Amino acid sequence: MAQAALTRLLARIVTPDPGVALRAQARLDRLTKPPGSLGRLEELARWAARVTGSDAPAVRAPVIFTLAGDHGVTAEGVSAYPAAVTAQMVENLCRGGAAVNLLARQAGARVVVADLGVAAALPAHPQLVGCKIAPGTANLALGPAMTRAQALAAIEAGAELVDAAAPDCVGTGEMGIGNTTAASALTAALTGADPAAVTGPGTGVDPAGWARKVAAVRRALAVNRPDPRDPIAVLAALGGFEIAGLVGVVLAGAARRVPVVLDGFIATAAALVAVRLRGEAREYLMAAHRSAEPGHRVLLETLGLAPYLDLGLRLGEGTGAALGIALLRAAVACYAGMATFKEAGVSERLP
Amino acid sequence: MAQAALTRLLARIVTPDPGVALRAQARLDRLTKPPGSLGRLEELARWAARVTGSDAPAVRAPVIFTLAGDHGVTAEGVSAYPAAVTAQMVENLCRGGAAVNLLARQAGARVVVADLGVAAALPAHPQLVGCKIAPGTANLALGPAMTRAQALAAIEAGAELVDAAAPDCVGTGEMGIGNTTAASALTAALTGADPAAVTGPGTGVDPAGWARKVAAVRRALAVNRPDPRDPIAVLAALGGFEIAGLVGVVLAGAARRVPVVLDGFIATAAALVAVRLRGEAREYLMAAHRSAEPGHRVLLETLGLAPYLDLGLRLGEGTGAALGIALLRAAVACYAGMATFKEAGVSERLP
Repeated sequence: MAQAALTRLLARIVTPDPGVALRAQARLDRLTKPPGSLGRLEELARWAARVTGSDAPAVRAPVIFTLAGDHGVTAEGVSAYPAAVTAQMVENLCRGGAAVNLLARQAGARVVVADLGVAAALPAHPQLVGCKIAPGTANLALGPAMTRAQALAAIEAGAELVDAAAPDCVGTGEMGIGNTTAASALTAALTGADPAAVTGPGTGVDPAGWARKVAAVRRALAVNRPDPRDPIAVLAALGGFEIAGLVGVVLAGAARRVPVVLDGFIATAAALVAVRLRGEAREYLMAAHRSAEPGHRVLLETLGLAPYLDLGLRLGEGTGAALGIALLRAAVACYAGMATFKEAGVSERLP
Repeated sequence: MAQAALTRLLARIVTPDPGVALRAQARLDRLTKPPGSLGRLEELARWAARVTGSDAPAVRAPVIFTLAGDHGVTAEGVSAYPAAVTAQMVENLCRGGAAVNLLARQAGARVVVADLGVAAALPAHPQLVGCKIAPGTANLALGPAMTRAQALAAIEAGAELVDAAAPDCVGTGEMGIGNTTAASALTAALTGADPAAVTGPGTGVDPAGWARKVAAVRRALAVNRPDPRDPIAVLAALGGFEIAGLVGVVLAGAARRVPVVLDGFIATAAALVAVRLRGEAREYLMAAHRSAEPGHRVLLETLGLAPYLDLGLRLGEGTGAALGIALLRAAVACYAGMATFKEAGVSERLP
């Protein structure tokens, strides 16, 4: 993606019309329930109306984009699992054996699995979309993880996945051994937080592994010194192919005016890059849940997003997004299907 | 229900075998995810295994029991809505226009609507189960809401609804203008909490209405003085027909060894009565969510239940239970459907 193509994508993302949300609230208050009694489900229904610009928002064909990539920083001993697991889990995702497959099915969502930068040559699979930018990133503790051109290409690939699937709701997911280290580095660089405050156990490293992770993030910041005012530079230096792909997924979802349901720490790091590129994208984001990773809280606060679920998930893949999509569908179903006081002949509030 | 029949029902409720939960955890740890990374979904899967005593728990035919009843205490001006709304909403529930209908459909659950004590004579409807004990309770601020025999009959009716539906998962719901006042009185009597601390706005009374509500609860406690060691006496004095029916629903669910998913404040008040009757019933309870009603927090703490959702719901009907059932189904789906490391050929943790 040339910078020009990114600029065009960003220009398509506009602030939604607030009038639609006001009309949605008026409808919610006519439904057979005390005003506000569906709590945050009402907030979700209003948001879906605002985002889509529709008085009858629908979530019928949600798609979770689970993008995979490998990370050179695994050489620093930052993960509890060998890097080979990325490729193995991509196959598991394609066969339907991973958690997100089961949760997506429950939520009525399709999963698109894409190889943005897995180190291994993956066998072809009907469920796998190949858009490998390179076989894994370089070690971000030693220098830039990607070139600027690679980061832009991954963003473009992510955006194209969304355009090809044409979903009416986007979920974000990822698989990449080492990618919580990249997300911690991105979070520290973009928010100014101390690396130790935004680095967690990931898949479950021990205290020594956690210390190596923090050290790798500190070195990455010292070696790369990306300019936080240049989000693409930060992404290229500290991100990953699947993270850059998710930036494209978020931007394309916002450009298409569909709800974008964020998963956990890594997906939200990608979302922050997207919002730094185009502030208007923020309006299209739903934080499905708060993950157990400490950096996720910092990202959510920075973005001003209040998560809907807090279940201690720390798996990624889009598992939290799947649960969030189910909640969004529930909210939209109430909004669309409940009877009004008038239709049902139910008495309204006492004066 | 003679006291003897209740005694027989209670005797059927036994502590689940902890060995099943241990085996469930062992299976969870073999699935292709870092141990514990599904957070509280893993807790739910273990619980479903323990409750059902099955290494392959399934939730295929969940039923939400939405029981309706009227409350004499509405004469005290404790609700924002006229008492006629109970009957009107029962018809709306039968036609599928209420929030719980939409949320249950999303969760793949059936809704059983039953008249335990609506004041009006309801027209027959194929979706309505008639088991009216009496046309509304007496005003609990002036004396006992029900006789002991009525309370026992309502418990029996609730238990029979569950036996007739034979669900593999029970959700609890209710509709009854005035029933948050009854639930506040039950909560104060059973936990010793001050009425003001466990009385909330319900469907949305104004401050003057709230003060009338608290006063009604205080008078109910002073007039009835039920012995907290006699849960049936407390229930009869301060409860409602739909609340007593839910006590039966909870007890029958526990006796049948199926997961019992609690809705909000009123359902949890019924659950506390059930647990006071038979402590073993506690093991079969899932707190779907924390409602906005302040008394709900007190009940959940008393029962030692940690809610899964906190979305500001305060609607009742079984809306929170429906969301909880969806979450439980998601947890069980992961447990049953995910590939193990061995099956998927995925490498395990580094040593």
